[in-house]
Amino acid sequence: MQRLGIGLIGSGFMGRCHALAFRAASSIFDLPAQPMLELLADVDDEVARRGAEGLGFARSTGDWRVLVADPKVDLVDIAAPNVLHKPIALAAIAAGKPVYCEKPLAPDAAAAKILVDGAEAAGIKTMVGFNYLKNPITGLAREIVSSGEIGEVIGFRGIHAEDYMADPAAPYTWRLEPSGGAGVVTDLGSHIISLARFLVGDIAAVCGHLETIVKERPVGPGAAETRAVEVSDQARCLVRFAGGASGSIEASWVATGRKSQLDYEITGTKGSLAFTQERMNELKLYTLGQPSGREGYKTIVAGPDHPPYADFCPAPGHQLGFNDTKTIEVRDLIVGLADGGAPWPDFREAWEVQRVVDAVVGSARDGRWVGIAEV
Amino acid sequence: MQRLGIGLIGSGFMGRCHALAFRAASSIFDLPAQPMLELLADVDDEVARRGAEGLGFARSTGDWRVLVADPKVDLVDIAAPNVLHKPIALAAIAAGKPVYCEKPLAPDAAAAKILVDGAEAAGIKTMVGFNYLKNPITGLAREIVSSGEIGEVIGFRGIHAEDYMADPAAPYTWRLEPSGGAGVVTDLGSHIISLARFLVGDIAAVCGHLETIVKERPVGPGAAETRAVEVSDQARCLVRFAGGASGSIEASWVATGRKSQLDYEITGTKGSLAFTQERMNELKLYTLGQPSGREGYKTIVAGPDHPPYADFCPAPGHQLGFNDTKTIEVRDLIVGLADGGAPWPDFREAWEVQRVVDAVVGSARDGRWVGIAEV
Amino acid sequence: MQRLGIGLIGSGFMGRCHALAFRAASSIFDLPAQPMLELLADVDDEVARRGAEGLGFARSTGDWRVLVADPKVDLVDIAAPNVLHKPIALAAIAAGKPVYCEKPLAPDAAAAKILVDGAEAAGIKTMVGFNYLKNPITGLAREIVSSGEIGEVIGFRGIHAEDYMADPAAPYTWRLEPSGGAGVVTDLGSHIISLARFLVGDIAAVCGHLETIVKERPVGPGAAETRAVEVSDQARCLVRFAGGASGSIEASWVATGRKSQLDYEITGTKGSLAFTQERMNELKLYTLGQPSGREGYKTIVAGPDHPPYADFCPAPGHQLGFNDTKTIEVRDLIVGLADGGAPWPDFREAWEVQRVVDAVVGSARDGRWVGIAEV
Amino acid sequence: MQRLGIGLIGSGFMGRCHALAFRAASSIFDLPAQPMLELLADVDDEVARRGAEGLGFARSTGDWRVLVADPKVDLVDIAAPNVLHKPIALAAIAAGKPVYCEKPLAPDAAAAKILVDGAEAAGIKTMVGFNYLKNPITGLAREIVSSGEIGEVIGFRGIHAEDYMADPAAPYTWRLEPSGGAGVVTDLGSHIISLARFLVGDIAAVCGHLETIVKERPVGPGAAETRAVEVSDQARCLVRFAGGASGSIEASWVATGRKSQLDYEITGTKGSLAFTQERMNELKLYTLGQPSGREGYKTIVAGPDHPPYADFCPAPGHQLGFNDTKTIEVRDLIVGLADGGAPWPDFREAWEVQRVVDAVVGSARDGRWVGIAEV
Repeated sequence: MQRLGIGLIGSGFMGRCHALAFRAASSIFDLPAQPMLELLADVDDEVARRGAEGLGFARSTGDWRVLVADPKVDLVDIAAPNVLHKPIALAAIAAGKPVYCEKPLAPDAAAAKILVDGAEAAGIKTMVGFNYLKNPITGLAREIVSSGEIGEVIGFRGIHAEDYMADPAAPYTWRLEPSGGAGVVTDLGSHIISLARFLVGDIAAVCGHLETIVKERPVGPGAAETRAVEVSDQARCLVRFAGGASGSIEASWVATGRKSQLDYEITGTKGSLAFTQERMNELKLYTLGQPSGREGYKTIVAGPDHPPYADFCPAPGHQLGFNDTKTIEVRDLIVGLADGGAPWPDFREAWEVQRVVDAVVGSARDGRWVGIAEV
Repeated sequence: MQRLGIGLIGSGFMGRCHALAFRAASSIFDLPAQPMLELLADVDDEVARRGAEGLGFARSTGDWRVLVADPKVDLVDIAAPNVLHKPIALAAIAAGKPVYCEKPLAPDAAAAKILVDGAEAAGIKTMVGFNYLKNPITGLAREIVSSGEIGEVIGFRGIHAEDYMADPAAPYTWRLEPSGGAGVVTDLGSHIISLARFLVGDIAAVCGHLETIVKERPVGPGAAETRAVEVSDQARCLVRFAGGASGSIEASWVATGRKSQLDYEITGTKGSLAFTQERMNELKLYTLGQPSGREGYKTIVAGPDHPPYADFCPAPGHQLGFNDTKTIEVRDLIVGLADGGAPWPDFREAWEVQRVVDAVVGSARDGRWVGIAEV
Repeated sequence: MQRLGIGLIGSGFMGRCHALAFRAASSIFDLPAQPMLELLADVDDEVARRGAEGLGFARSTGDWRVLVADPKVDLVDIAAPNVLHKPIALAAIAAGKPVYCEKPLAPDAAAAKILVDGAEAAGIKTMVGFNYLKNPITGLAREIVSSGEIGEVIGFRGIHAEDYMADPAAPYTWRLEPSGGAGVVTDLGSHIISLARFLVGDIAAVCGHLETIVKERPVGPGAAETRAVEVSDQARCLVRFAGGASGSIEASWVATGRKSQLDYEITGTKGSLAFTQERMNELKLYTLGQPSGREGYKTIVAGPDHPPYADFCPAPGHQLGFNDTKTIEVRDLIVGLADGGAPWPDFREAWEVQRVVDAVVGSARDGRWVGIAEV
Repeated sequence: MQRLGIGLIGSGFMGRCHALAFRAASSIFDLPAQPMLELLADVDDEVARRGAEGLGFARSTGDWRVLVADPKVDLVDIAAPNVLHKPIALAAIAAGKPVYCEKPLAPDAAAAKILVDGAEAAGIKTMVGFNYLKNPITGLAREIVSSGEIGEVIGFRGIHAEDYMADPAAPYTWRLEPSGGAGVVTDLGSHIISLARFLVGDIAAVCGHLETIVKERPVGPGAAETRAVEVSDQARCLVRFAGGASGSIEASWVATGRKSQLDYEITGTKGSLAFTQERMNELKLYTLGQPSGREGYKTIVAGPDHPPYADFCPAPGHQLGFNDTKTIEVRDLIVGLADGGAPWPDFREAWEVQRVVDAVVGSARDGRWVGIAEV
């Protein structure tokens, strides 16, 4: 089998998650190429060396440029801090290598567009990490919507709320850098925006409202010195889809008590469905035409009928986990890199998501509806 | 005991609900006055006669003006079609009698204000039927919020979605009369707006979006002829509260599959809570300060600790129903009519709710934020 | 309309619940006779007088024998302490009056049988208060089972667990009197046994296990003196139904945290269903034959398709409460008392339930299966 | 790092699950030894060769005896059909190699005891695959029970119900071989019995009831010829724990609609908890001492506070899956094989589980309580 040399930049939360996914993907799936954990880059040689050892990479480097240039690296995998996404991606494109980048691809749509144009001009395959799209039960939701089982979509409600920044003592981090003021809209909002697009289609316009709840944060853990926060902690927007449906999208990282409230609810003229990430193996479905007195939402439990669940387990109801969705993402990446394939979601899709993010921010700033076409 | 002669106008769904509530209230509670089902008015003598017999009223009339003037009628209870709310209420006020009116009080805020001013100038006590406020577990929610148990409120999400108008064959009714185009905002939205105000406080501004999904409806059941619908079937808005919190409110009567999705979720800096009418005896509560590894939302089940649950049943978890909330409303009405009392929510509160409705409609029309003060 | 003079004995929890139900029933339903709250009896004149005033009875007496003999009392309603059920019922039967008795009818099956035989010999109509059978959604469950929608029943699981006796400081009461040692089996177990019979049919044999968790209780509230408890606090049994299904039944009044866990789950060869009283307006239903990848339990929400829900409210999903099930019970009683009717569940059914209770107790004592026919 | 050569026998569902777990464990955890997928054995050379290729083993063999003898095999991992567990385990013990065996270890307690005695006499470390014990949230449940947070345990309810044998057309398989008639008691019951022991402790006695619902099954997929089934399809038993608690345990593989209903509920004198595998990342917990009017079960969501969740993901609420519990099992195995370690659950624990299974079968046959000491 063909070998695919992975060059991973970053060994933090997401870097580790990627490494686990590459290893699991080759166990779980029958892949067209064998991913090899070839080279790990991190901020310096020592951090990289320890990361490589921990994650099982063959070699390490303190310089991501070395990684991009390495002849055994066939895929540049970016799990580095957001500020590095653009230079690394451009370098990989220049080197003619496919790129797998964690979301958010870029701080704003303009920057994302440069990457899209660069990759497309060079014919480079790309992928961005929106792994919630890869949950089999969300794949079922998409199939139900696109098949017309719930009729024409008239409503969408999407929420991504967590509480990891709710504590005012949580220190300032790179997530709070004022890249357009988006904050949680980029960090969590991009997930629910990508789901909205995946399930319902293009968004035409938004009208948003952003807020910074914790206005000062310690410069570091336990620090007395604080720094002003310029980005949003919670965001809400109304949306209009190109296909005619309307809806709302919310994102918050200060939602006290919520650990993973990534919910969507879709209303159609002939049915409706609802999902929450907190029970990520379940989909609620209502359809017209049930016998009288027996109408109700059914709870569909993920199982072998929902590909690629069966690759993980032959028995229904046994539950997939968060990491499994990343494994499916990596499967889709490797399959997409094979001849004739196209990984998805790619840079263009990430740009489309970022356009919505920018529109929400602009809309909130101006207090009016903003068309995505304006971005 | 003092007797309180009830004059009810309208023997439909809500008229019957009121009659049941008056009878139940005197069984369940120790009231300061005994409600007597004195006189029922309806569209004509025959309908009124049958209604009185069915609901247990002593007498009947085909003319609501007779009812208002009847010396044995101490309280004018309006469960008539919306268009009659204003003339009846004004007549009752002129006759110096307290008024109990189903929501919506009036088609718009201006009309409601006339009633408020009239009642207040005349010193007439009033009440409007927002019975969801009377659920003991929602009373608990208010207590939790107002006591600061969840800190400062930073977010509110409110939904009232049902599907009774989802079928395009559902005929044109008075609910669809174009009183400002509000439609579902008035019909269901007023419930969730009143809850938002009850739980979080005054709303300062809204930014709304309305849609008419079913654009033509049969003029009557099974009719081939159709009539254009001008009012909204589904509505969404962003809200800003005077106290600083922000949120979203949604209402729909075309939410396929939803029978009674009246949900609210309140996020505070120290906790959060969540409720759905579909499980109206439960409140989810999260608070900071739980032991490590033991944090979670608790599900509080309605019981005798949540007044006036104990008046219905001494055992916790035995479940109240929808009609019981109307019974509590009537209790509050009769207690409020006693010396020194003040029923609540009164006409003024209903006017405040209607101002928000009007702001949503205006905002949706103009595509911008509208301050409630503008209405 | 015919009048039905109610003579109620006992003004405690259940007496009040009955009075409320009689008043509500005539509001809610179109009854063949009008129940009149004629006469209330309690332990002495003063208690009876206050009870009558509070519950709305016309007259009162401190002697239940006077009540039974009163010419205006058409129905003897027994909500007195258990020890009085038998003498009052026998007196009513002797007086030729129908009897409505709270469960448990008698301390053991032998005593119950005497009442059954007496009533049947005299042609007296009877009813026993198993109001959980009257929940419309449980009526739906029965319809689903009996229609064969879930095939042949092969399994039943029933639980009635609450925690009102969990506190060791909860004092000794009449519930703890050693009528055969049944304790919770009679008090709560009889509810779930009656549901088992209602839904699946006759029970053929049981094998039970009983336990007294709190072995000493204060003789009264806060008393230092204690009294030994001889009856069971929690009970479990295996059951075999006459129709071939098997199952398990559990009852506990020391189930810390449970307020109203009255659950049943029925498995058939073609489907299954599940209910919990904590969400008494919902029924979960699974049936074979759903489209591939779309299989799931549906949640049916009580509504107008489930009689007599519509008599309470025309809108689905609006929720009935505990008291509403008692109101339905009283409706069934009054309809059953009319010409040609037969109230149900009657004394015979209560005797059948008690036979199962006795069998559980005997089985637990002897450590073996006991056939109901042995009792 | 030390290398641990894995010799796996069987490449079916569980064989694959083991292989995935070994690969994942070395990615997820910092292990004392590196598992190497050294040698795979299966029924013949060709099946083994394909299995090894698919699962990533270095070599293959059609003879498990060759595997046991292979010098590079340090651990004998048995995922072969049940009938082979005993001979392979004995051979591995004889070869002085540790053994990791899927449940059930043996067809009955006597056979299991031979393996226990053999392993203990030879000082061989062993482990049996009860991976549900490894769920972090079940670890939390055990910690809560053992710390006394819910007081003294007085009740246990355990269920393991699925429907993979519900279809009468599901053919006869090795699961149906009449090893003492246990059937589902061994196959699924062993899981819930092991959980009961893990959470509450030794079982003292049981009283069981078994049934064969589908009495004839096709000899193969679609076959017209049928074969009589002698083993149980559903099982229920009452249990008494050595520590004084009592409870019930049920198992079924014909529970129409249930995909993974592995539930437990534990009642203590000061609290209670409840779990269902269908929501395997949640634990419900009730404790005494909550503020008045605020009592309720809390839903604890698995997160980094529940080891070893954090090794999979640093963010709470992101959900582990079924395969992750197998990965934790393999971690415990490898840690247990290191110097001074002891894998658990070992053969002795599996024998204890099997004793309960045998007691249930004997009890059901004789219609009486059977003490575990009798087995």
